[in-house]
Amino acid sequence: MGAKSGTLTRAALARRDAADPLAGRREAFALPDGVIYLDGNSLGALPKATPDRLEAVLRREWGDDLIRSWNTHGWIEMPGRIGDKIARLIGAAPGEVAAADSTSVNLFKLLSAALALKPDRGAILTEEINFPTDLYIAQGVAGLLGRELRRAPGAEIADAIDDDVAVVMLTHVNYQTGAMHDMAAITRAAHDSGALMLWDLSHSAGAVPVDLNGPNGADGADFAVGCGYKYLNGGPGAPAFLFVAARHHDALSQPLTGWMGHAAPFDFEGDYRPAPGILRTLCGTPAILGLAALEVGVDLILEADAGGLREKSLALTGVFMTLVAERCGAFDIIVDTPREDARRGSQVSLRHADGYPIVQALIARGVIGDFRAPDIMRFGFAPLYLRHVDVWDAVEHLRDVLENRGWDRPEFHARAAVT
Amino acid sequence: MGAKSGTLTRAALARRDAADPLAGRREAFALPDGVIYLDGNSLGALPKATPDRLEAVLRREWGDDLIRSWNTHGWIEMPGRIGDKIARLIGAAPGEVAAADSTSVNLFKLLSAALALKPDRGAILTEEINFPTDLYIAQGVAGLLGRELRRAPGAEIADAIDDDVAVVMLTHVNYQTGAMHDMAAITRAAHDSGALMLWDLSHSAGAVPVDLNGPNGADGADFAVGCGYKYLNGGPGAPAFLFVAARHHDALSQPLTGWMGHAAPFDFEGDYRPAPGILRTLCGTPAILGLAALEVGVDLILEADAGGLREKSLALTGVFMTLVAERCGAFDIIVDTPREDARRGSQVSLRHADGYPIVQALIARGVIGDFRAPDIMRFGFAPLYLRHVDVWDAVEHLRDVLENRGWDRPEFHARAAVT
Repeated sequence: MGAKSGTLTRAALARRDAADPLAGRREAFALPDGVIYLDGNSLGALPKATPDRLEAVLRREWGDDLIRSWNTHGWIEMPGRIGDKIARLIGAAPGEVAAADSTSVNLFKLLSAALALKPDRGAILTEEINFPTDLYIAQGVAGLLGRELRRAPGAEIADAIDDDVAVVMLTHVNYQTGAMHDMAAITRAAHDSGALMLWDLSHSAGAVPVDLNGPNGADGADFAVGCGYKYLNGGPGAPAFLFVAARHHDALSQPLTGWMGHAAPFDFEGDYRPAPGILRTLCGTPAILGLAALEVGVDLILEADAGGLREKSLALTGVFMTLVAERCGAFDIIVDTPREDARRGSQVSLRHADGYPIVQALIARGVIGDFRAPDIMRFGFAPLYLRHVDVWDAVEHLRDVLENRGWDRPEFHARAAVT
Repeated sequence: MGAKSGTLTRAALARRDAADPLAGRREAFALPDGVIYLDGNSLGALPKATPDRLEAVLRREWGDDLIRSWNTHGWIEMPGRIGDKIARLIGAAPGEVAAADSTSVNLFKLLSAALALKPDRGAILTEEINFPTDLYIAQGVAGLLGRELRRAPGAEIADAIDDDVAVVMLTHVNYQTGAMHDMAAITRAAHDSGALMLWDLSHSAGAVPVDLNGPNGADGADFAVGCGYKYLNGGPGAPAFLFVAARHHDALSQPLTGWMGHAAPFDFEGDYRPAPGILRTLCGTPAILGLAALEVGVDLILEADAGGLREKSLALTGVFMTLVAERCGAFDIIVDTPREDARRGSQVSLRHADGYPIVQALIARGVIGDFRAPDIMRFGFAPLYLRHVDVWDAVEHLRDVLENRGWDRPEFHARAAVT
């Protein structure tokens, strides 16, 4: 775990920062003074390179070269080009990933495609505390196609896969608890029962190692989706991504058959013909500004060593849990995130009946986490730009807020539109 | 038509520019020197204000205020706020329009919703030369839901609406020909047959007046979609928009039930409950960078007088057709766009067997139009930033290219990925 109870000091953590091979990466991000940003699992920080890149796309590509930029600046290739970069982060092969649309829209495409591949099976199976948009989209697909959505507790998923399950849809790292599923084991269980496996990597890509294809592609995941604006630092509402294992490409049929998924979009044929490979998952015109910003964020992750990122992420979350136990143990806080390294992502969730105003009080002090109903305080640890001392300082603020009931002020109870 | 054969001179057109009340609007756009941009119907020009706006969104909103900007900078309200602005351009009421996703994805939502409202009818009816993504998405929806896609020539649409047509889907201004449908008459014909009416305004919004609700909302259109990156100048792949008449809001059910269309997205409920009103058409997290750029473009259109825009647009296209007839009449060019003002949008389409290399030769001279298979040369006239003398100069280049076979060089025949 890297941090033993009673032995940690701020000075010791500062020494870890001094020895941290990733420490210099923080300089690539435009983090405001006085802020400890523990919400990179909701919106990643701004890379310093992004504004200049966007200005070039705006002034030089759009402004000067106008419509010609679809060819001359490779705009038309961005969904596939950025997809290939993301593929390297998630254990996929070139040509298996595209960057496009939102996670929700991509879930709709791939759940529909999965059900079409399993016409004799009636159900989508998921975890009961999956992220709401995953649940809602699955409800939409199931309702539209006359199928069923089944939900089970996370620990019982593998046992709940029966002969009627067409596709198992899970988020690899849970948004509430930060708990991480065993991807290889559950994928194998799905396949053993004849079901397909769809992973949502929204809280994984860029933060924890993912090996979608596994050591042997045939045993790997069938489908995946994921988010561009969390650990990939693509910006608010960045384009999402989706993965389809190469073995499914030829048979893949998804219903959002827009022109960018056509085999020859600029032949303007009267009938839809799917593009070969992953491009058949595209729908409308690519969102170039969003894709350009996403590419900057993805490039930054690719420059870092994946093993080093995971090691630092585990150290940060481990220290946070240790310090919370040591220093905030008196305040009715429940740690909702597994201590076991292999079972957690890059976030720690704490539960407290006054979680909402506590999070607001922390934000007022510059310690930015977020709240998830009904009582969850989430703290995300992006290893590219957080320091060990940030963890210390955040826990000190939390302790102080709890000890002095610093959260018990009317303004911290007022609910905002977005939490 | 504003231009009689034989009377036009460049000097006369320059005098029109001097008297043009919209002439000053050109200054709001960053048009490169030496370019006559006749492709604003494919990608609108860059507003000069857009780079500064995007820089503020990046550095101040995303960079400094991070996740808090969803509330403090109103990010969460952007789909509805920009939708309300677009509503003013298309004859819709506040709360009837949202800006989100792509035109293709929005077509999927609204075609599905229309079919759900008409469960006893089997067909989507459209124009056989509708834009391909409209045709492809309709094929996808029809295939998924076991319905039929019927196609008819544009002039025969009204007669083709029978008791089995659930929804008529038409693009108001055709992408190939620039011909404009009579929105009120066809909407009435659809309603008289008990069908719903869905308009694609991709080539209308920002260029021609649109009155979706008509003089009496009950007789107005039911649904509409449209594009943000053409005459709205929202940038490459800008978010699109969609309209649902208020009378359908309560019954509206669309299958892309992502979390942003939920009644209470941040309550993280386990089951989907549609938001009231137009917001139930939203799906994933809003694309903030794209929406911010789109809003700049929409604001620029709103600042101009709609009647003046239409008058100038008709003058530009009219002069273009007159000059082409006068000066290029010897070169086997077919004008595919109606001369009658009420029947054309803001583009002129010319057909020629060598249309592809002719368009490339013009682009090499800085006269940027585009080519659409099999033989169509398209010239769009954005009245906010084009001058009457641009029309003269463009036709002179066209005449010269035709007269001297300036297109007959190998490099002009090489097909690019995007045409």
